Amino acid sequence: MRVNAYAAPAAGEPLAPTVIERREVGPNDVLIDIEFAGICHSDIHTVNGDWGPQPFPVVPGHEIVGIVAEVGTDVERHQVGDRVGVGCMVNSCGECVNCRNGDEQYCVKGMVPTYAGTDRDGSTTQGGYSTRVVVDADYVLRIPASLDPAAATPLLCAGITTYAPLRKWGAGPGTKVAIVGLGGLGHVAVKIAHALGAEVTVLSQSLKKQEDGLRLGADHYYATSDPDTFTELANRFDLILNTVSARIDVDAYLGLLAVDGTLVNVGAPPEPLSLDVFSLIGRRRSFAGSMIGGIALTQEMLDFCAEHDFAADVEVIPVDYVNEAYERVLASDVRYRFVIDTATLAG
Amino acid sequence: MRVNAYAAPAAGEPLAPTVIERREVGPNDVLIDIEFAGICHSDIHTVNGDWGPQPFPVVPGHEIVGIVAEVGTDVERHQVGDRVGVGCMVNSCGECVNCRNGDEQYCVKGMVPTYAGTDRDGSTTQGGYSTRVVVDADYVLRIPASLDPAAATPLLCAGITTYAPLRKWGAGPGTKVAIVGLGGLGHVAVKIAHALGAEVTVLSQSLKKQEDGLRLGADHYYATSDPDTFTELANRFDLILNTVSARIDVDAYLGLLAVDGTLVNVGAPPEPLSLDVFSLIGRRRSFAGSMIGGIALTQEMLDFCAEHDFAADVEVIPVDYVNEAYERVLASDVRYRFVIDTATLAG
Repeated sequence: MRVNAYAAPAAGEPLAPTVIERREVGPNDVLIDIEFAGICHSDIHTVNGDWGPQPFPVVPGHEIVGIVAEVGTDVERHQVGDRVGVGCMVNSCGECVNCRNGDEQYCVKGMVPTYAGTDRDGSTTQGGYSTRVVVDADYVLRIPASLDPAAATPLLCAGITTYAPLRKWGAGPGTKVAIVGLGGLGHVAVKIAHALGAEVTVLSQSLKKQEDGLRLGADHYYATSDPDTFTELANRFDLILNTVSARIDVDAYLGLLAVDGTLVNVGAPPEPLSLDVFSLIGRRRSFAGSMIGGIALTQEMLDFCAEHDFAADVEVIPVDYVNEAYERVLASDVRYRFVIDTATLAG
Repeated sequence: MRVNAYAAPAAGEPLAPTVIERREVGPNDVLIDIEFAGICHSDIHTVNGDWGPQPFPVVPGHEIVGIVAEVGTDVERHQVGDRVGVGCMVNSCGECVNCRNGDEQYCVKGMVPTYAGTDRDGSTTQGGYSTRVVVDADYVLRIPASLDPAAATPLLCAGITTYAPLRKWGAGPGTKVAIVGLGGLGHVAVKIAHALGAEVTVLSQSLKKQEDGLRLGADHYYATSDPDTFTELANRFDLILNTVSARIDVDAYLGLLAVDGTLVNVGAPPEPLSLDVFSLIGRRRSFAGSMIGGIALTQEMLDFCAEHDFAADVEVIPVDYVNEAYERVLASDVRYRFVIDTATLAG
């Protein structure tokens, strides 16, 4: 099955139209007619070669929403016509301790990423910047009917990446949560933390997006470029979710945590970070990391967003705007996620 | 009240006999005739000036066991003749959120350390290398009758320092716990983790103390000088308790943790550590710190040790051996804690 797609032909080169092959629908597969594909910062890192050599041409896109067009003979959980989603992974071993615990993203044999990965049949996976995709039914999520499909798209990565740590580290009524960075991940994190009932503070470089932050559900908004922020908020938070991949002064952020507080990074800067262990010991604090989330938790997150009637704030674009959109993502010039209308790929 | 003591007259100078003043017994105070005082590595750091200027002369000692000689008019929880203990702190505000939560060691106004601290009346605290001490009854622990008093002494610091994180991070049946370093703290940690029901692995520089480690309750023993250790044990542990204050390769130890595993430092190296955040994100791991433990938890730890019939392994020494003992602690030449018989101070 040949489908239209947009691919990076080589590291650092602009994305361009192409045609790729999708596998035949197997017994446990779902064929999805893609409606929308989100643009994640990871897409840009990957096609730029920031994360090492890639199997070019690469079709990015691991935030996918579409309609089921066909299901394999063994598929029970999805039906033709359903609106479904695919996130950052499309396979895992299903048998290791982590898969069995619902943490497929930490599969001992390695989960299969939605693009630029090697699937269990040896083929290279290609992502959502395309018209159709075939995915194992166990890695396909149900998109609740009440969610706008374009706005729901970024939930498949940005949503689960922030929902998972907010849930694991207990964001909820009576807790004080800070979200570092108000970008693609941060803006969804604010909405989720607010919906979970936490008192939410945004820590952003400047106050430029303060009005937005408060509208999204933040109770407080501080500029990290102001050194007073770090004295005023000392020992304040139960949880700080850092959505920024740039290097941070870890000790300064740890200093904002109360006893038993946790700073969780969902992005990793390219170079090692330095920290004074006394920042941890002084109040029994933790510095942790979290990577997306399991399939069952992703479904829980989608249902949670529907129940609380929110999704991401998106700017829907035609596919031929992708390269310009990448420039704008790098300049933080998007509120807050680009989503490609893949109807513009149909030929 | 003037009492005999052993003090460091200035930074880096040998300890020598002296006489110090103890306050009169107030309404909520307990006067303790000291029997034993443990030697903690912190004592050496403090008198050497490693942790900054100190109010010399300094009488060290924050592992104290003795017999109640007198109680103030308001004291109900201790009686003359009781065997009691004092650990690393002798006061705190009692009113802040951390004190109210039983985490007096994280008192917002600062807990009062047992020596070289400033008590609430403005006086400088002096520690256990002496014959008698007056302590607020709320900071005095009951030593269970079944425990050998000399062997129980190190529990007041080494015991609670390791018990608190082992409990907080869930060491118990079905969990795999590693203890890094088999010294004063490490050997007690092995006993506690074993008594809690965990599967215990010692990670020590060499296999020199392997026989001891297994006798103390470890199930496995590995040398960290052997690089194979870090591949063989990859992704193995739920909890690693690092009792070594020297710099470690944090990423190497984080690599030994399973999904959701935590590396907890109870000591802080003097210089910042470096870590690759991907070591955390890759399996939702945490790097944490912990400092001693609250008063109620310290009592729980003492009762737990009595119930499981163990305390520390100690070498009891006369007070005039202190300076030589310090040299031997620095050379890791003690199995596993020196305890001063303070009867040798009476004169």
